Amino acid sequence: MADSWQDRAKQKREAILAAIPLEWRIKDLPSVEEKRDVTGDYISGFLSEKEVAITETDAEKIVEKTAKGEWKAEEVARAFCHRAALAHQLLNCLHEVFFDAAIESARALDAYFAEHGRPTGPLHGLPVSLKDQFHVKDVETTMGYVGWIGTFEGKTGTGKEKVHESEMVRELRSLGAVLYCKTSVPHTLMSGETMNNIIGYTFNPKNRNLTAGGSSGGEGALIGIRGSPVGFGTDIGGSIRIPAAFNGLYGIRPSTGRLPYEGMANSMDGQNTILSVVGPLAPTLGSLRLLVKAILSQQPWLHDPLVHEMPWRDSHEREITTLLNPEDPNSGAKLCFGVIATDGIVTPTPPIRRAIDIVVNALRSQGHEVVEWQPPSHRDILDQAFKTWEFDAGTDLKGAFALSGEPMLPQVSSFSTLEKQYSAAEIVAVNVRLRELKKHYMEYWNSTAKLSKTGRCVDAVIGPVAPWPAARPEKYAYYGYTTWVNALDYTSVVVPVTEVDKKIDVVDKDYQPMDERDRTCFESYDPEIYDGAHVSLQLVGRRLQEEKMLAIAEYVGKVVGR
Amino acid sequence: MADSWQDRAKQKREAILAAIPLEWRIKDLPSVEEKRDVTGDYISGFLSEKEVAITETDAEKIVEKTAKGEWKAEEVARAFCHRAALAHQLLNCLHEVFFDAAIESARALDAYFAEHGRPTGPLHGLPVSLKDQFHVKDVETTMGYVGWIGTFEGKTGTGKEKVHESEMVRELRSLGAVLYCKTSVPHTLMSGETMNNIIGYTFNPKNRNLTAGGSSGGEGALIGIRGSPVGFGTDIGGSIRIPAAFNGLYGIRPSTGRLPYEGMANSMDGQNTILSVVGPLAPTLGSLRLLVKAILSQQPWLHDPLVHEMPWRDSHEREITTLLNPEDPNSGAKLCFGVIATDGIVTPTPPIRRAIDIVVNALRSQGHEVVEWQPPSHRDILDQAFKTWEFDAGTDLKGAFALSGEPMLPQVSSFSTLEKQYSAAEIVAVNVRLRELKKHYMEYWNSTAKLSKTGRCVDAVIGPVAPWPAARPEKYAYYGYTTWVNALDYTSVVVPVTEVDKKIDVVDKDYQPMDERDRTCFESYDPEIYDGAHVSLQLVGRRLQEEKMLAIAEYVGKVVGR
Repeated sequence: MADSWQDRAKQKREAILAAIPLEWRIKDLPSVEEKRDVTGDYISGFLSEKEVAITETDAEKIVEKTAKGEWKAEEVARAFCHRAALAHQLLNCLHEVFFDAAIESARALDAYFAEHGRPTGPLHGLPVSLKDQFHVKDVETTMGYVGWIGTFEGKTGTGKEKVHESEMVRELRSLGAVLYCKTSVPHTLMSGETMNNIIGYTFNPKNRNLTAGGSSGGEGALIGIRGSPVGFGTDIGGSIRIPAAFNGLYGIRPSTGRLPYEGMANSMDGQNTILSVVGPLAPTLGSLRLLVKAILSQQPWLHDPLVHEMPWRDSHEREITTLLNPEDPNSGAKLCFGVIATDGIVTPTPPIRRAIDIVVNALRSQGHEVVEWQPPSHRDILDQAFKTWEFDAGTDLKGAFALSGEPMLPQVSSFSTLEKQYSAAEIVAVNVRLRELKKHYMEYWNSTAKLSKTGRCVDAVIGPVAPWPAARPEKYAYYGYTTWVNALDYTSVVVPVTEVDKKIDVVDKDYQPMDERDRTCFESYDPEIYDGAHVSLQLVGRRLQEEKMLAIAEYVGKVVGR
Repeated sequence: MADSWQDRAKQKREAILAAIPLEWRIKDLPSVEEKRDVTGDYISGFLSEKEVAITETDAEKIVEKTAKGEWKAEEVARAFCHRAALAHQLLNCLHEVFFDAAIESARALDAYFAEHGRPTGPLHGLPVSLKDQFHVKDVETTMGYVGWIGTFEGKTGTGKEKVHESEMVRELRSLGAVLYCKTSVPHTLMSGETMNNIIGYTFNPKNRNLTAGGSSGGEGALIGIRGSPVGFGTDIGGSIRIPAAFNGLYGIRPSTGRLPYEGMANSMDGQNTILSVVGPLAPTLGSLRLLVKAILSQQPWLHDPLVHEMPWRDSHEREITTLLNPEDPNSGAKLCFGVIATDGIVTPTPPIRRAIDIVVNALRSQGHEVVEWQPPSHRDILDQAFKTWEFDAGTDLKGAFALSGEPMLPQVSSFSTLEKQYSAAEIVAVNVRLRELKKHYMEYWNSTAKLSKTGRCVDAVIGPVAPWPAARPEKYAYYGYTTWVNALDYTSVVVPVTEVDKKIDVVDKDYQPMDERDRTCFESYDPEIYDGAHVSLQLVGRRLQEEKMLAIAEYVGKVVGR
């Protein structure tokens, strides 16, 4: 008799744990009450001094050291495997653990270095974590579905099981990266929290009362606790930016067609009104740039039919760095920022509003211009965007659950109530309307050249990623602050700004919620529960402006002291 | 009582003619039997020497002269208006005639030149014709539908009627172009022939037994007879390349996202599995380059949300021109071409096969490599591609016909028999399959680096545009030679090669057709009927390779003596 879904989930959950060496197990796991914040000193207590030094070094500096042979790939890999193993026990952030393969590939890199006296590539010996949509040889991809265990995307006998690799995995390997784990996702991928019937719930390392975010929540938690120096997530409605923001990380949502999604598992694959994109999350901006540049050096447009031939554009980056260089003769030239304090649909909570003030004041103090962003209605954009999630009436998602009989968790259960698929004519109507709205927004953005003192259009728009610093479990009720960016296919980079301080970020008792959803979001904020959580914002740029936005985000991070 | 659709069509047809000055009317229109070929001396007989000189000058040389003030914009505009007026009477190739507005804008350009001593832009005083999908101020867009007369895309009271301009129209004006007419299309746009209930049938000027092609057939006919130096068509399944090929013209089907389609009328707008693209047709390759470069200089990505920020890339062009420069020290470096003699579904007719031999022999004689192109199945690609035309079961098209009650002409009547729309899940399945097929084709193309002696991948693929040099009316039975390019979103440039010679291009009496469609195509070729027709081929390159493919097409045109 076939095992129940509960049994299969348990076996998988135990297999993940079993892949963690015994000497890396935590004997007495602390409760949330005992230990809300498990980052920093707490987790470092389980590591050697060298392991702490390695895992608290950012990707740029790691490859500096491995490229000179100062650090061996193997010791770097071991240190991150150890910290990732601890992270998973504290946070439930891993779906796949393949430390042995990682050590083996790290040794091969060390052997290459020993023989040739030079690194294999720009990511020589850099551990990179991957969201559990990437296919890696010898490793499963469950995407959190019990029914996908032991299959290739729910199918058996495809010949691809544990053999097929995603295009970006091939590129990362050839750049010298070391792959060692795949991170947790919410089943369906369609949630700002990360939970499934296999690993349970992924918690926020900085404040375990809260979610690590989703859908790249495992990445957020793992990198947040420095169990990975850099990792890749995906984003169709905020899924890179939400976990980046909730874990105090930088994260980029590139525009579609910039980085290769080819050969990855996905939800509702083939829905091409709003495409999911792939991008990195990391504790430093330089790490994002390193990864984006490295991937583009592989000419992904020759291997992914949806990627545009658009190499890394130094000139775009230089345009910003030159403007911002105080030693440049043109340094009178400044940037102009738009700011979204609220979208008028859901009011951001106090810590988010304070973060906006911090950024605005810091930029103004440097002589930059900040103007109110008054774009065409975000509500109109969101009305269309959210339809795309319902085009197939949940057919794809329901099919994945039906494979095992497991239930949809509450965060995504609304998909089970959808009944009628959109027809072709209904879909094209959404496509046409979205194109019109993109055009309106584009012309608004063009019009800001008249508004700004720089004579240029607004360079970047500062805005919330979500109404809260992070959501409380089962309380992620609004995606509007991220999804407008996907609908318009803009470039967005998340920048960490501050932390919740319960003494400052008090509830505004006089606030009158605009409607039920606004009330839900308002009421979910509690300074006691949120105290200490990361608070981050996003910087939104126009389509395909990755170089420019990375440069601006690095600068903004600097002026707010990150 | 409302007029019948017949009356409304007749009124519109007569209004088009009425916009042609009386002195430009042809008294005794010759029958096809009397005058098969109305190009060259025949049409020149109606024009002054100066008008002939102007209208037989290509776009590059026209703007050379207008930029120096050697020719006035007004005299250039008048000459092309005159020749276009003659063309329409012989071929039924115009939907909208706005010569007065053209003369007025030409005069404004001349006044600017007189005042400032320099041209307004790179297209100063260049007449440009437009397919009747472009919206131009003060001018209707019917797209061949009786029901669209007096409306904005079939709707009234939108406030856009005769006011709204397409983005490219705005750009052409600001570049200095003179707009003077809009050209005929088949109703629905979904045909390789051009016919509708307003203007009737658009004939091929070189051989009026044949179609001018479609759906940009009015452009093909008008430019073919030199009533326009350059014009813009659109292509979702061959609609730029077919009329370019049938009229002995160069024409480029760029990849999606290169040139701005924003604000144009379209069929089945919002179907975004395979997008229609816009591109120029002209008698010389240099004219295409001039227009593509000029449009890109306008940064269309700031005004069309679907255009990628990809300026004209000189380096891409230089890569080819350097390789082909005999004075270059590396001139041992040559190109490698793939050749598609047949797709195995429909066998090309004798003139097409001879054209392929001409090109292959010419290239080999210059030392280039030509290898057989053995790609993944085109049939699989086409099976998916043709589904996209039927996604909405003809809902959009039927709606346009229902506005007036006019009938679908036989070339497109199969749309009336469609009943069931595709569901969202069915559409995504097509999207996923097409992406897989693109990936396979991409990897095949990558693999040709091993095949070629150049060490590079195949630079361009030589292939037919259609099984025949041009189709006979109501005999356009196969779109496979063009549509695979749309499905893969490749760049393609049509190159004129030769003309049908009934003495050489005889029917192969021993040929055994593979199936009924192949038989239909085989039997539609008749050397007597086809004698003198243009024979052209396409050169297909990878996605977004416009600069490279224009450079290669120019070279191929040169070596075949065009």
